[in-house]
Amino acid sequence: MAITVVGSVAFDSIETPAGRRERCLGGAATYFSLAASFFCDVRVIAVVGEDFGAAEEAVFKTHKIDTRGIERAAGKSFFWEGSYLDNLNEAKTHTTDLNVFAAFEPKIPEAYRDSEFLFLANIDPVLQRRVRDAMPGVKLVAGDTMNYWIKDHRPALLEVLKGLDILLINDTETRMLAGNSNLVQAARGVLALGPRALVVKHGEYGATLFHGAASVSELAGQQVSELASQRKGQGTNCFRSPALPLEVVVDPTGAGDSFAGGFFGYLASQPEQTPAAFRRAMFYGSVMGSFAVERFGTERLQKLTRQEIDDRFTQFRELTHLD
Amino acid sequence: MAITVVGSVAFDSIETPAGRRERCLGGAATYFSLAASFFCDVRVIAVVGEDFGAAEEAVFKTHKIDTRGIERAAGKSFFWEGSYLDNLNEAKTHTTDLNVFAAFEPKIPEAYRDSEFLFLANIDPVLQRRVRDAMPGVKLVAGDTMNYWIKDHRPALLEVLKGLDILLINDTETRMLAGNSNLVQAARGVLALGPRALVVKHGEYGATLFHGAASVSELAGQQVSELASQRKGQGTNCFRSPALPLEVVVDPTGAGDSFAGGFFGYLASQPEQTPAAFRRAMFYGSVMGSFAVERFGTERLQKLTRQEIDDRFTQFRELTHLD
Repeated sequence: MAITVVGSVAFDSIETPAGRRERCLGGAATYFSLAASFFCDVRVIAVVGEDFGAAEEAVFKTHKIDTRGIERAAGKSFFWEGSYLDNLNEAKTHTTDLNVFAAFEPKIPEAYRDSEFLFLANIDPVLQRRVRDAMPGVKLVAGDTMNYWIKDHRPALLEVLKGLDILLINDTETRMLAGNSNLVQAARGVLALGPRALVVKHGEYGATLFHGAASVSELAGQQVSELASQRKGQGTNCFRSPALPLEVVVDPTGAGDSFAGGFFGYLASQPEQTPAAFRRAMFYGSVMGSFAVERFGTERLQKLTRQEIDDRFTQFRELTHLD
Repeated sequence: MAITVVGSVAFDSIETPAGRRERCLGGAATYFSLAASFFCDVRVIAVVGEDFGAAEEAVFKTHKIDTRGIERAAGKSFFWEGSYLDNLNEAKTHTTDLNVFAAFEPKIPEAYRDSEFLFLANIDPVLQRRVRDAMPGVKLVAGDTMNYWIKDHRPALLEVLKGLDILLINDTETRMLAGNSNLVQAARGVLALGPRALVVKHGEYGATLFHGAASVSELAGQQVSELASQRKGQGTNCFRSPALPLEVVVDPTGAGDSFAGGFFGYLASQPEQTPAAFRRAMFYGSVMGSFAVERFGTERLQKLTRQEIDDRFTQFRELTHLD
């Protein structure tokens, strides 16, 4: 199974209480790809500048990530500079230089067209929609967005939501998108906009999967494609994955994208996307997010092994297991 | 098994986005007692004024709570007025009239002295210590405190912590008590002050149990009294119980005290306080907190049945259960 992901590949300069790093390899598509690469084949669509060299290319290649969709353009790559000095849960942005990303026109390599899974990372919803429409044969589509698109590009975003199976956003974005401060009511509001399932990421407190079927146990054996039809009139239900309380958080950048990569990568690795697979996927998402924040940028994801991932999965299971 | 609880019995006037109630029966010892009464015998030590009448007494009696330790004094009961109009997670206090509580001198009825469990609700640590010292025969002691005592009455509070098996506080209080912004490091700092276990309440995100044993699975079959000796040099470990995302939160008052009542009441109901019992107790704590907020004051706890509690326990188990 293969995932095609469209999103940013960037350089980040990051300052946290643990120190500072200049021009780390970053971007949502990078974190997502690395995290998902431990579970399935990953193919990236992005644009980079002339500052993206052999060393950066090697990070993808080492993880067998297909980079044929990474376009090289004249100029510099997307650059972001931010800090988390006062609050590890919220980045303070100092610089955003879109550079070559400003004119990004996603091009889908022919070799990507048989992908069964598509992830639309946080970019302009107009581009998300274009890529989604260009890949009508995919089995499952997930996506992310952010407050900027929710506030100022709502009509375009609503079009994207209609074509999504799974939306992954945080608490604040969920409330903002639905215009409702109660998380459960807001989740129901978001589900009514199109997505069959909503994953709300709570940062250090884990994440919650909301869907429309009558109860989680009643979903056993059903495919995600059946969830939407069950939703009508049956309320909203949920599943929560914890986050491991972490003693050391070096750099929160990319935690949400790494969650998405672990979540969607695990789902794509399964023969069927059953509710049980969704539950395990939620745990793998939490696991990948917990690794990402242990080092600056993608350092930890680059060095990770599948054995470490499965060991931590076992730890997470034990963290909330009753009997 | 019986729990003796010392704390406040009060009247609360509460305003939330759902409405306003005048002079609800409240106070930490009231919420705790009602929640714990579904699991074991409960005996209360408190002081009330002349405004505490037959109707209030009946709330306790209906739940078979022993009120012989509730002293009647001349004057008015403790009165609190607060609102949650902007933020359901944080009360804004408008009025605190200590009234008869200002001169509270806890008196322990002879009939309470064989209690095996003691809960020190959030009151002046000098009084907490006095009650704890007066009941040397108890098997397990748990307690609560708040920012005011942590900041301005630290020496007295540190004396209380030395005599506690389990401390239940929230994230902010944990960080404040340890002087460390990382929750795991702060939890370890708090455990070093005396308690054998620390329950950190995360509000809508559940709660985490921190203890010192090497891993949760290694605790199987061990008594809580063995936890302390295992702690040295083996790091800090944890267990997390979720909170059910709630569609309706009418009044958050007393959620933490109800968590404590469910948690400690369930523990007291068990023949042995094994790690498995601790895990289930964490879930019962979350369950009782989730009921408390569904109505104003103690209205929901007053009408609750054990069947409803066990049904919700099953729901909570399912909420994070993997297989």
